[in-house]
Amino acid sequence: QTSKKLVNSVADCVDDALAGLVACNPSLQLLQGHRVALRSDLDSLRGRVALLSGGGSGHEPAHAGFIGKGMLTGVIAGAVFTSPAVGSILAAIRAVAQAGTAGTLLIVKNYTGDRLNFGLAREQARAEGIPVEMVVIGDDSAFTVLKKAGRRGLCGTVLIHKVAGALAEAGVGLEEITKRVSAVAAAMGTLGVSLSSCSVPGSKPTFELSADEVELGLGIHGEAGVRRIKMATANDIVKLMLDHMTDPSNASHVPVQSGSSVVLMVNNGGLSFLELGIVADAAVRSLEGRGVKIARALVGTFMSALEMPGVSLTLLLADEPLLKLIDAETTASAWPSTARVSVTGRKRSRAAPTEPPGTPDSTAAGGLASKLTVLVLERVCSTLLGLEERLNALDRAAGDGDCGTTHSRAARAIQDWLKAGPPPASPAQLLSRLSVLLLEQMGGSSGALYGLFLTAAAQPLKAKTDLPAWSAAMDAGLEAMQKYGKAAPGDRTMLDALWAAGQELQAWKSPGADLFQILTKAVKSAKAAAEATKTMEAGAGRASYISSARLDQPDPGAVAAAAILHAILEVLQSQSV
Amino acid sequence: QTSKKLVNSVADCVDDALAGLVACNPSLQLLQGHRVALRSDLDSLRGRVALLSGGGSGHEPAHAGFIGKGMLTGVIAGAVFTSPAVGSILAAIRAVAQAGTAGTLLIVKNYTGDRLNFGLAREQARAEGIPVEMVVIGDDSAFTVLKKAGRRGLCGTVLIHKVAGALAEAGVGLEEITKRVSAVAAAMGTLGVSLSSCSVPGSKPTFELSADEVELGLGIHGEAGVRRIKMATANDIVKLMLDHMTDPSNASHVPVQSGSSVVLMVNNGGLSFLELGIVADAAVRSLEGRGVKIARALVGTFMSALEMPGVSLTLLLADEPLLKLIDAETTASAWPSTARVSVTGRKRSRAAPTEPPGTPDSTAAGGLASKLTVLVLERVCSTLLGLEERLNALDRAAGDGDCGTTHSRAARAIQDWLKAGPPPASPAQLLSRLSVLLLEQMGGSSGALYGLFLTAAAQPLKAKTDLPAWSAAMDAGLEAMQKYGKAAPGDRTMLDALWAAGQELQAWKSPGADLFQILTKAVKSAKAAAEATKTMEAGAGRASYISSARLDQPDPGAVAAAAILHAILEVLQSQSV
Repeated sequence: QTSKKLVNSVADCVDDALAGLVACNPSLQLLQGHRVALRSDLDSLRGRVALLSGGGSGHEPAHAGFIGKGMLTGVIAGAVFTSPAVGSILAAIRAVAQAGTAGTLLIVKNYTGDRLNFGLAREQARAEGIPVEMVVIGDDSAFTVLKKAGRRGLCGTVLIHKVAGALAEAGVGLEEITKRVSAVAAAMGTLGVSLSSCSVPGSKPTFELSADEVELGLGIHGEAGVRRIKMATANDIVKLMLDHMTDPSNASHVPVQSGSSVVLMVNNGGLSFLELGIVADAAVRSLEGRGVKIARALVGTFMSALEMPGVSLTLLLADEPLLKLIDAETTASAWPSTARVSVTGRKRSRAAPTEPPGTPDSTAAGGLASKLTVLVLERVCSTLLGLEERLNALDRAAGDGDCGTTHSRAARAIQDWLKAGPPPASPAQLLSRLSVLLLEQMGGSSGALYGLFLTAAAQPLKAKTDLPAWSAAMDAGLEAMQKYGKAAPGDRTMLDALWAAGQELQAWKSPGADLFQILTKAVKSAKAAAEATKTMEAGAGRASYISSARLDQPDPGAVAAAAILHAILEVLQSQSV
Repeated sequence: QTSKKLVNSVADCVDDALAGLVACNPSLQLLQGHRVALRSDLDSLRGRVALLSGGGSGHEPAHAGFIGKGMLTGVIAGAVFTSPAVGSILAAIRAVAQAGTAGTLLIVKNYTGDRLNFGLAREQARAEGIPVEMVVIGDDSAFTVLKKAGRRGLCGTVLIHKVAGALAEAGVGLEEITKRVSAVAAAMGTLGVSLSSCSVPGSKPTFELSADEVELGLGIHGEAGVRRIKMATANDIVKLMLDHMTDPSNASHVPVQSGSSVVLMVNNGGLSFLELGIVADAAVRSLEGRGVKIARALVGTFMSALEMPGVSLTLLLADEPLLKLIDAETTASAWPSTARVSVTGRKRSRAAPTEPPGTPDSTAAGGLASKLTVLVLERVCSTLLGLEERLNALDRAAGDGDCGTTHSRAARAIQDWLKAGPPPASPAQLLSRLSVLLLEQMGGSSGALYGLFLTAAAQPLKAKTDLPAWSAAMDAGLEAMQKYGKAAPGDRTMLDALWAAGQELQAWKSPGADLFQILTKAVKSAKAAAEATKTMEAGAGRASYISSARLDQPDPGAVAAAAILHAILEVLQSQSV
């Protein structure tokens, strides 16, 4: 069975993709009648060396993503995994020559078809009197014994695009660029690994891997690799890759050893970028563990094999002059903007600032206020623990049935906290401490919402702790809950109960207001509001995804909130504050 | 069954990925003890507004890829698809405050957990006296009826990072930035589509799709979308997406219509980049077909959902002042460097240069030279056609058995060409024409190799056509074949026969050399060399992958080449040139 692909037709996929790429990148133009993309500012290149590359399609962003000032002048694309047409290569050479460039360098990955087709176009162009040179790039480190055809061209080719581009931009001549990049190409190695194969549009996957296998040493055309290994950790697989690539007994190894300075390229195929970061981390640690200095690291998608979920590592031995070329400016869209700083040696983390000291806790150990606080909190806790089963049952109708469990967890956390020492006597500090406690121990949205409520409520209590301040605290808490929780009264949440209470507590702001009378009304109102959630449709929170038909019970969060207020009232009354 | 992932452990994957990302990007630093990445040049931000964002991991390159000058100051990461810890958000706020920044804006995607946790950290930071604002971004256009929670935050959030970053870099104050980006957020819409689901490390895929289904309107946490549609062409799916996103009856639509100017974002998940280009092409054509002006297009991976093979489109209504902010410089690694030019309206292709006129064909119709050429070519063709079966049989031992077919195809192409009119009388032009003919009609590596041989051989014959020039032509052809084909004498290819002949033809370079005597020796030598390939191990070409044990027959390419030389000799002798 062929894999699903988001294409219009197998026949059109390369032309459509190229059209999309060029349409969305105003720095590029298509050459009419050919699968060729060129810089749209060709005429600004008069007197400079032109750089053309390309190859089969299916390796995007290679190669068109590397067209730009400081990189390629243009690329010629073939069908998927197929060498480009000689006529198109020749047309591209003619087009850049017509723009007055000082000769063209063809940068060709080492594959027979590419060598022949680019070579033929080169010979034809030379017959027309156009100066054209050609470098054939092989950076594959997979084969321990080399065939006459030499190393295959892989992701390292992109580094050659960069180096050649920087030289051309600097006005260096054709022969000198050819010489320089040939030397650079000899100093690099690439190795790929993949968790699965890819499939050419309209075809089946190119090979099959079982669930516990990984393919090592792949090419970029969906061909199988040199070895199949057992699935292992990213650390182990990366170590194996680096061992293989740098093993002097491997004829295609890159001579990286302790003391070497390298450019590291971590190239993603279709792995998640989360995994790419993990591989990059493993590569950096493994290389630095070998005493290798990572002068620069490039992490991203550079050269893919369709959707193949693989990653390749490229190592390039680099001295300072070469790093200058790697660092040079480019406008190529797929070249990452990375800081021109050595990876090895720099400080990768900074100390987190310490918590601001704030005012010292006003814990009046054994003081009257503190004793009352303990009594209130203990009653709240015992109330919630007693409600656990009922809250869970209510929650099973509309949520995941853990509302009672969550509130009990909070209650036990408060109980433990109280055992550790007296709570702060300052109401603002008390609420702030409870906020952190609930956030960390209660968990879930309820923990965050109560945390928010308490953090916001603490603020008005910093300056004063009279009845108007407590009313303002309730207001601030409710406002924060609504703002960040996006729930409003009537949405069938804990807010309904708290909101109803808050409305009554407005009366505390009037001069001479009575604590108990008003609080009693508030608790009654909260209970009524909790009960009234029975008939409400859920407008926020998890319950909003349940059809209202199933909700014939009150919201457990609202019931809990009303019960908490009731517990507070009872203790205050019994202590006749 | 859980999907294969290249990780070290489920528990470590977020921390490892963040470490790798920061290690390879020297512009970033980790905040010790937290999943927080910050600009390493924090101290340069004194007096500017700091921008913090973040959310669950698994959306890479979002969010850390957008840290940099002109974009975010830092990000806070949570576990995979899980909101970040309040303590870490607060630590990040404190760290940027400590660097002397002029307040912090939290840019939060609209999800309950993110709103609550960022909101709580904000309240706590404000309680410490740090000025912190928060914008909650919702750009989802999937839901036609909006719940109170509003639109989910999707890839459009990255555009907010960019706009806010440009404003902060320009020194705009906290309140003004908050106001501006809130307005921008209201003018965008995003819709995603996916061919399959993703799986959280250690878990099963989050939903299942059959081979002919596509999921429309997904979130970024592996949750299923709003609709499941039948697989269709990229054009049709993109049209459906744009219809849905811009439909005024959709409560979450973006009011894009004919005459609108937009920024288009084409965001890849784990689709191949070939498909991404196809989607971009479809989007550009569909939008322009609706009369929408695409002011800028951003194509790449911005916000993913692990490996989910999906793509999202974001449309942002943009006027000139907004485009200036989108265009502003940034060093963020995942922001593409795209030209600051309108996509719509610019010239996307240029005419290919016409073939250089060259010298007119020296076809001396009916002339002696032309008649001889016709006789030679006809004999070569009939010889190759007569050899078809034998060559195919030889090729079956070492290749894919089509060597005879390929050569016959060439022969028939030459016969057809001869019927169309007399061949050029100039040897250089004759060989060049044959080169193009074989390349186009013969096909494969043989076509390219003969094409190369003839193109190169034509060059020395441009100035002179005496015997030394013909010997030089042979040399040039052989050199080109070796260079681009990477075959040497002894590698069991057609080169063996041609090379042997070429060695004999060196004698043509001596004064007074005899045409027939030397050519006769050359043909004899070529035949012997072809026969000798029987004992050779394949060193290049397709046969090099076959064990030498199976090769007890001569190489068919070499046999054909010797036969061609023999045919030429016979005709020349019969005509007593």
